[in-house]
Formats: sequence, C-alpha cells, structure tokens
Amino acid sequence: MRNVLLTIAYDGAGFHGWQRQPGVRTVQGTLEEALARVTGQDIALAGTSRTDAGVHALGQRATLRGDFGIPTDRIAAAVNNLTKDVKILAAEDRPEGFHARFNATGKTYIYRMTILDDREEKAQAARIFLRNYRYLLKTAPNTDKMYEAARAIEGTHDFASFRAAGGADAESTVRTVHRVGMMQTDEEGPGGARLTEISIEVTGDGFLYNMIRIIAGTLLEAGLGKRNPAGIPDVIGARDRARAGHTAPASGLYLKKVYFENDGNE
Amino acid sequence: MRNVLLTIAYDGAGFHGWQRQPGVRTVQGTLEEALARVTGQDIALAGTSRTDAGVHALGQRATLRGDFGIPTDRIAAAVNNLTKDVKILAAEDRPEGFHARFNATGKTYIYRMTILDDREEKAQAARIFLRNYRYLLKTAPNTDKMYEAARAIEGTHDFASFRAAGGADAESTVRTVHRVGMMQTDEEGPGGARLTEISIEVTGDGFLYNMIRIIAGTLLEAGLGKRNPAGIPDVIGARDRARAGHTAPASGLYLKKVYFENDGNE
Repeated sequence: MRNVLLTIAYDGAGFHGWQRQPGVRTVQGTLEEALARVTGQDIALAGTSRTDAGVHALGQRATLRGDFGIPTDRIAAAVNNLTKDVKILAAEDRPEGFHARFNATGKTYIYRMTILDDREEKAQAARIFLRNYRYLLKTAPNTDKMYEAARAIEGTHDFASFRAAGGADAESTVRTVHRVGMMQTDEEGPGGARLTEISIEVTGDGFLYNMIRIIAGTLLEAGLGKRNPAGIPDVIGARDRARAGHTAPASGLYLKKVYFENDGNE
Repeated sequence: MRNVLLTIAYDGAGFHGWQRQPGVRTVQGTLEEALARVTGQDIALAGTSRTDAGVHALGQRATLRGDFGIPTDRIAAAVNNLTKDVKILAAEDRPEGFHARFNATGKTYIYRMTILDDREEKAQAARIFLRNYRYLLKTAPNTDKMYEAARAIEGTHDFASFRAAGGADAESTVRTVHRVGMMQTDEEGPGGARLTEISIEVTGDGFLYNMIRIIAGTLLEAGLGKRNPAGIPDVIGARDRARAGHTAPASGLYLKKVYFENDGNE
C-alpha cells in the first residue's frame, strides 16, 4: 500500500472548513474529488488539522493511502489542474504506518490583524479586499502590552481556558506553546491606503479547539487595555473558558507549517 | 427630484460585472436591491463605468435619482449594512441634470501584475490568495522596455487597435491618454514569499472596451521581449485589433477614480 504525504495550501474563504461534510464545499471533499478523477479510485485523505470554515492554510499536510497508479511526482500537477483555491504544493512518499495527524509533533499558525481607520475613505475600500483574509481592527492596540501577554502564554500549561466547546473532545488540555512571536508591518493597501498589520505566530506541540483564535482575542484585549497582561497566568490557572478573551474571527487564521519527527521519514 | 452621486468600491471577484443582468449577481443589481430595501422604492443606478466580470473598483461613481426620504448622509451606512463585497464610500447631492456617465471627464485605472516564481513553494501558496486580484506572471518583464512602450501610448490617438469587439459601439475611437504611470514594489506575500508587483496606472478622458487590459497586455509583451516598444506607434496607426497585444485578465484591473468638471457641482 502506498502512502503519500501531501503539503497543501488553500484560501479558506470559499470552503466550509477542511472536513468532508455532505452538501457543502470543503477542502477535504474538493481534494478527494479531484484525487478520485486523477487516480480513478475512491480515496480518503487524512489531514493534520481539521481547520474551520474560513481558516486558510499555507502548509496543511495530509496523507493519501492506496494502490493508485499515478507516480508521486505527478500528483500535484494533475490535481492542481482541477482546482483553483486549493493547491497541492508537494507530494512525497512515506512509510506505510505514517499518518499526517497522529504523527505530527507540532504546528505553526499565523494570526493576521490589520488596523484600518474607517474615517479614511481609502481604508474603507481596502476593507472590502481584506475582509476574508484578516481580522480588521478600527483601533490600534498597544503591541507592548500584547507582547507581555504573549510571554505568559508560552510554556507548558493546562489551556482549558483557551478551548472552545464543539471540537472533538481532547483527553488532556495540557499543551506546550513553544513560541508566540509578534510582527508589525506597514503596508500599502489597494487604492493607496496606509495599513498596519500585526501578525501573531504561534508554534506548539498541538492546539485545542479554537485555541489560537482565543489566544489572539485575548492578546488583542490586552493590547486594547481591556484586560491586564499580568492577569494571563490567573486566566490560565482558572481552567474556565469564560475567563479568556473573545474568539478572534476565522478570517485571520493561517495554518503555516506542520512538523513531524524526521519529517515523517523513518 | 433628488440626484445623489455615490462613490463605490467593490471586490469584483464575486460579481458578473457592474451591469444588472437577470439570473446573475452583479454590482448594480446588488446595490439596487439594497437601495430598494433602504428607500422602499424601485431605484435605478447610472454607473460611470460598466466594468466587466472580475474587475474591481476603488472609486466607481454612480448617480441615484428619485424622491426617496432617506437623508443623503445616511445612505452609505444603511446600504453598507446590507452588503459585504461592495460598499458605498460617499454620497453627495448633485444638481438634477448631472449624470455619472455622461458628465465624466476622465478616469484613472490601475492594472496590477505580480511576479511569482512557481518553482518556489511559498510562491505557489501566494498564488492562491492573489489569483482574483492580480495578473500573475511567471517571468519578470523588463520594466524599462514597458516604460518605453508606455510613452508611445500617451497622447491623443485613434485607439481602434486597442478596442475589443463586444462592448457598446463607440462613435469615435479617438481618445486622449493623459498619463501611463508605472510603479514597481517588492512585498511579502502570505507565508513569507517575496513578491514583486508591477502596477500600471492609466489616466485618460475615456477608454474603449477592454482598452486598459489590451494596453497592459501590450506593455507586458514589450517587457517580455515579444514585441519591440519602438513598434507601438505603428500598432496604433494600423487601427487593427490583431496588431496590439493580448487582453490581460480582468483580475488585475481596478477602477481607481472618476473625474468630473468641478466634481459635478454647478
């Protein structure tokens, strides 16, 4: 049985998330359909992350098991010919026992926010083009305060306060966040609007349901003076979802990279 | 009878162009529907530019005539509440005889191209996010040659070679292009890909059907060494569509600004 590891990017705006569901367009469903046409077989993909509706991916991974005939190095071009807003970036053979989800040792997500002053006409035009790709803010947060809050997130903690109901039940809510990086960049938007983007890059061994979006919402509230960054350890200690910040919207979230031990090679 | 001049921005990706048509989603149709809900009346908009499917606008203009009750300064907020990918940026009273199309004295369009090296994995991911908003090129054109070709476009010429069949028949094919500006910027795309954007900004007294897209295609061919920039005057002189370059895709085109004498105030 062949086992091929795919690297996948998609614009989440047009999908109801990763996971195949009847009656709606999903990333997994769209890829499986294209793979069925390319291989002539029914094929089930196992993705690393079951990203929600509207969430984007720059480096999702998925394993593809079967006895299909197409050479591994032709899979990407053949599938990409059939798809527009999801593309296979790479396809590599892996040992039969390897699984994109169970063998993942970590992930990096990026959360992107853009500050747009609505009183400026150009900013309003930019808003239209960015609405599916950023969390659009009207007020600039204090990034020093966000940075301070970010430091308290790093480390091994019980992140029950940062887990939304509705995901698959995880046995343990303890996770290790290796790093919460922040970057601020100025850019020119469509029509010449001056925009400031704040992006948060979070790397960890795994994340609970909506955990990155709740971290982003909580850091933002610290930056906007709605909560004290020094209070984050108490929020973590409470193990109570109501104590953490709001869930930032899906539009700002990008799955950037998935890590495997030895990249999945034995 | 009131006459209100609207400034409008839209993401063209989700529309079959400006002009109302049965059975498809258009900008005019979407706005007229929202205006009907806001005013309680059937309202016909007269837009300056009947942009094609996929073409974007940062500053489309349209006039709205009728005896509706809503104050002019509340129109934008009321309509924008009902719409997502098209927004009214401004609404201003104008004299009864003023018409957004017939009184326009000029327009500026931007044509945006991005160079993406497909051999780089990050560039492939960026391609997904930019596909509806740029003309994506695999090879970098020589911008000096494009600039030289651009100089030959400026001025008052018979632009029959730069007119596609299929638009409304213009009586005359003579137009004045005041300026063809070019700008090159480096930017960081989603996932950290290094991208180079080349944008062409064209201002003129009016444009024939697909004229900007044919100018963009022709300049690009000069930049890629597929035609001699010194041959552009002959292309213009031939009055033959087959002599000019290809029609660059709609995704790269943005209507930036419309000009009126005295901005339409008497």
